[in-house]
Amino acid sequence: MLSLPIAMLAEYLPLQMVSRVILLSTDRWAEKNVNPALFSRELMRNSSNFLNDEAVSHDPQILLMKAHAATSSIGSATVIIAMLEKTGTLKIASVGDCGLKVIRKGQVMFSISPQEHYFDCPYQISSEAEGQTYKDALVCSVNLMEGDIIVSGSDGLFDNIFDQEIVSIISESPSVDEAAKALAELARKHSVDVRFDSPYSMEARSRGFDVPWWKKLLGGKLIGGKMDDITVVVAQVKTVVVPEDEVQGGDTEEQKGNEQGAAAVVAYKMNDEEVA
Amino acid sequence: MLSLPIAMLAEYLPLQMVSRVILLSTDRWAEKNVNPALFSRELMRNSSNFLNDEAVSHDPQILLMKAHAATSSIGSATVIIAMLEKTGTLKIASVGDCGLKVIRKGQVMFSISPQEHYFDCPYQISSEAEGQTYKDALVCSVNLMEGDIIVSGSDGLFDNIFDQEIVSIISESPSVDEAAKALAELARKHSVDVRFDSPYSMEARSRGFDVPWWKKLLGGKLIGGKMDDITVVVAQVKTVVVPEDEVQGGDTEEQKGNEQGAAAVVAYKMNDEEVA
Repeated sequence: MLSLPIAMLAEYLPLQMVSRVILLSTDRWAEKNVNPALFSRELMRNSSNFLNDEAVSHDPQILLMKAHAATSSIGSATVIIAMLEKTGTLKIASVGDCGLKVIRKGQVMFSISPQEHYFDCPYQISSEAEGQTYKDALVCSVNLMEGDIIVSGSDGLFDNIFDQEIVSIISESPSVDEAAKALAELARKHSVDVRFDSPYSMEARSRGFDVPWWKKLLGGKLIGGKMDDITVVVAQVKTVVVPEDEVQGGDTEEQKGNEQGAAAVVAYKMNDEEVA
Repeated sequence: MLSLPIAMLAEYLPLQMVSRVILLSTDRWAEKNVNPALFSRELMRNSSNFLNDEAVSHDPQILLMKAHAATSSIGSATVIIAMLEKTGTLKIASVGDCGLKVIRKGQVMFSISPQEHYFDCPYQISSEAEGQTYKDALVCSVNLMEGDIIVSGSDGLFDNIFDQEIVSIISESPSVDEAAKALAELARKHSVDVRFDSPYSMEARSRGFDVPWWKKLLGGKLIGGKMDDITVVVAQVKTVVVPEDEVQGGDTEEQKGNEQGAAAVVAYKMNDEEVA
């Protein structure tokens, strides 16, 4: 198994329009003599630097374009940029198989899909010409409500944990901190469990991968968790500002001073040294 | 099994900003002496009437609010409204378990999640006070590219057909017409197949539903398709207009005259009389 360290950065920036930003990147470079973490770390650092750039104008896809253009390290990475505006709109640009889900009232009500060239080979922002660019990003947005929970993470999280488990852990956790930690720990546990029928092994079977025929004859099937780095970011929307011109008849809502658009964000990272 | 006829309407309106609109509603009313189709049909008719309303301003959630307020029939329905703007932005408001997926380059790159009170009991827009309203809608948007395929449908479609099957049928179909027909036919075939391990039966088992213990002892498990009405809408994005102020350095793209933002849309409906 390749060791794929993860660069991850959760920002807590009190910007004028964008109240919280999640930046998450997983490096995918496997060449010798190259530190695979350099590219994704520089990409994330540049993303952070360009957050207030006027040309970015709170557009995560433009932010990705500028950050990528400014990155000089050799390497490649999957990346997700999610910006929560004070009005509750979460704007997302994603390249590859980092995931993001929104949980509302005990159910997953929004997920983004991974983008791959083929099974387990995700789209990647790269230092090389054959990689993907901001133009290949999945760009979408979703209107969030107060109380909504955002769970974002690397493929190592979502390949090892089912939606029902995420919902269950979120409902049992007293804080986003503890939810992130519990999610990472359950994903880690599943990742090393060779008998766990993980989302990853189910997906692999659905793509036609399986154990050799003689194992099949003995009743065997492709099963088990997926050993990988695991990064989890959990955030909860605290307040949402309804713009005055959008307030419909009868739907008045008080603005809540300094807490406008606030979100509690916590990031929890588990290195492969901890996983293995 | 309840008979749940479907009201569905695909619009082909050359609006100024919105090039295509998908309106889809499934009635869910099961009271005696009420025609369950009336509510959803009136809701869709009203949605169509309000499309050009200035206050709606190309916002599918506001359109749903206005259409619901204007509907006087007794009943309830799940509903999805999807508006494709000429710039390629698909704006979506959904209440319940109608589905929508976007397929790009042979993979599902965007899906919306169903909203339910509990398994198989979806959120519903209703004539009664205890139902959901536009405020409960999942509101999101996704930026589409030329060639992207939109597949929208009732739960009878997505409960009986896997993503991989949808992708495969789309890739094999010479037109959106034939894709919609083939999707509906495969979903219908699976829906009456008691040995098919459908998305519906897999979901049911993951929620703890199963066959009685004595059947389990004999190796049995909850399996089979889900008999239901099936409605499919398939659309393909033909051209996307890049606004001049969003064109980045070097990324010029010609506008394409009358075909701007055009999409081929086809709707295919299969009644339960055809299913049963």
